[in-house]
Amino acid sequence: MIYAGIDLGGTTIKAALVTENGEILCKKSIPTGAERNNRAIIEDMASLVKELVEDQGFTFDDVHSVGIGCPGAINPVDGIVYFSANFADFRNVAVVPIMKELLPVPVYIENDANVAGLGEAMFGAGEGHKNCITITIGTGLGGGIIIDGKIFSGAFFGGGEMGHQVIVADGLQCNCGRKGCWECYSSATGMIRMGKKWAVQNPSSTLNDAEGGRLSLLNAKDIFDCANAGDEAAKGAIQEYAHYMALGLGNTINVFQPEYIILGGGPSAQKDKLLDPIMKELADNVYGGSTRTKVVIAKLGNDAGVIGAAMLGKIS
Amino acid sequence: MIYAGIDLGGTTIKAALVTENGEILCKKSIPTGAERNNRAIIEDMASLVKELVEDQGFTFDDVHSVGIGCPGAINPVDGIVYFSANFADFRNVAVVPIMKELLPVPVYIENDANVAGLGEAMFGAGEGHKNCITITIGTGLGGGIIIDGKIFSGAFFGGGEMGHQVIVADGLQCNCGRKGCWECYSSATGMIRMGKKWAVQNPSSTLNDAEGGRLSLLNAKDIFDCANAGDEAAKGAIQEYAHYMALGLGNTINVFQPEYIILGGGPSAQKDKLLDPIMKELADNVYGGSTRTKVVIAKLGNDAGVIGAAMLGKIS
Repeated sequence: MIYAGIDLGGTTIKAALVTENGEILCKKSIPTGAERNNRAIIEDMASLVKELVEDQGFTFDDVHSVGIGCPGAINPVDGIVYFSANFADFRNVAVVPIMKELLPVPVYIENDANVAGLGEAMFGAGEGHKNCITITIGTGLGGGIIIDGKIFSGAFFGGGEMGHQVIVADGLQCNCGRKGCWECYSSATGMIRMGKKWAVQNPSSTLNDAEGGRLSLLNAKDIFDCANAGDEAAKGAIQEYAHYMALGLGNTINVFQPEYIILGGGPSAQKDKLLDPIMKELADNVYGGSTRTKVVIAKLGNDAGVIGAAMLGKIS
Repeated sequence: MIYAGIDLGGTTIKAALVTENGEILCKKSIPTGAERNNRAIIEDMASLVKELVEDQGFTFDDVHSVGIGCPGAINPVDGIVYFSANFADFRNVAVVPIMKELLPVPVYIENDANVAGLGEAMFGAGEGHKNCITITIGTGLGGGIIIDGKIFSGAFFGGGEMGHQVIVADGLQCNCGRKGCWECYSSATGMIRMGKKWAVQNPSSTLNDAEGGRLSLLNAKDIFDCANAGDEAAKGAIQEYAHYMALGLGNTINVFQPEYIILGGGPSAQKDKLLDPIMKELADNVYGGSTRTKVVIAKLGNDAGVIGAAMLGKIS
């Protein structure tokens, strides 16, 4: 049997056929057209899966199930998207029931951060381990919690918001309304904010020369590039970033004690340049300076979403 | 069938026979003698259960299982206490295997905070709900996490340390080695620290008259008593306490989204006097000012331990 996975994003719909071992047989992307009505987007998802199945010479008898990863607040039991800010018309939409009308196989849906976590846990950096938490470093800080091989999202499917834990009481204002959330400090956005601060405080830092001297365009990669070239202010920014990241990781270990914490998202491409300073800080944040939880870099990159989505049918 | 539960503490061994509906049929306590060797303590636990069974006219054919709640680091699968600071000789002790030699029924063991959480979730404030987190306010801040009716303690049984999450980066020094743990602010010890601070800053506060004017003896009940009598400094201390408690509760809701969070321990005897200020603060710490998670006061008091311990066999 093969498994179809869909990564539904605000910009692109990605779909793939995946083996039961997590190997991608084929994949295809189309623009989402997020401004359209929800029916048009759902029909496009179904068509994309049909195309892939036919292109590869399969029939739907070969397809175990279709899984969808979607941003927003989702009820995976009823297959409903309560709300997703990434699309114009996704409010209380019965995505799974509609997809089931269009395709002759079981259909599953889950939050996109959760399916990316599932993909990494099953076939990425956590392969072979049933208790993994993926932290995705992006504009925000996403969490995908896998306990005993299943997605954990609380009693009402809205849990797992790892980034929205206060680690700095009365700290920076977060978009969620709280102050001092982990996301404010440990997202890529948080790293960039720290980079800009260190640049301003250190006028001779090469951080000020990145992006043609336009500090407003500074990105996370710039900060690593400057640090790798020896810039002390950039190193200071990364050190500060690592300090706060380790606070949240230490909290996660003390509460969840997973086998693996997997760091994904753009800055994870820096691999040990990201991980090493975090691990140094983390030693101060776990009992006795060590823990059985391993902190590692994600492996699947952008494919984590389609692979994890495809596996929703397998774990159900 | 009846269930035997043991609450093994540093001072007292409590045991009870409990129905499958969580009702205590009888209970008995003896001094622990924590300075003795582990075998003597384990034999006392077995004898206590035998006494209760015989006193009530039962035989061990009527007993489904024996469950033990024990402080410290425990491996419930192998039935081993890795370490417990409350006893002189509890390091890598095979408590369950030894108990099984002494009693003709299945024996289970779990961390005491976890079994208290199980008791409250099954037959206390969370009755009928399978996803509950109990926060016990004492010298420290304990957590008992129940997911899907089972105790959750991470991949290596050492998770669930809710109190050892940093909520104030670089804050107060915690006994665990970290700085700014939730426990430092929201334990009874944390409340007393705040009460003393408000007393010193407000020399005319009645907080300074409690305990015969010996501020070093101030306890949590004194602070509530002063606040209930109208003392503004005491009210300020409780307000400050509620602020930090709500930060940790908000974190817990965003990550776990349980059905119930149950507040236990000494200060929970204050009921609404404790809960009301916390709920006011909590409104600022959850999306949109409301959440489906209910925050309530524990119901079982000191019996949560024996009832939860007794139920270990039922949920296994």
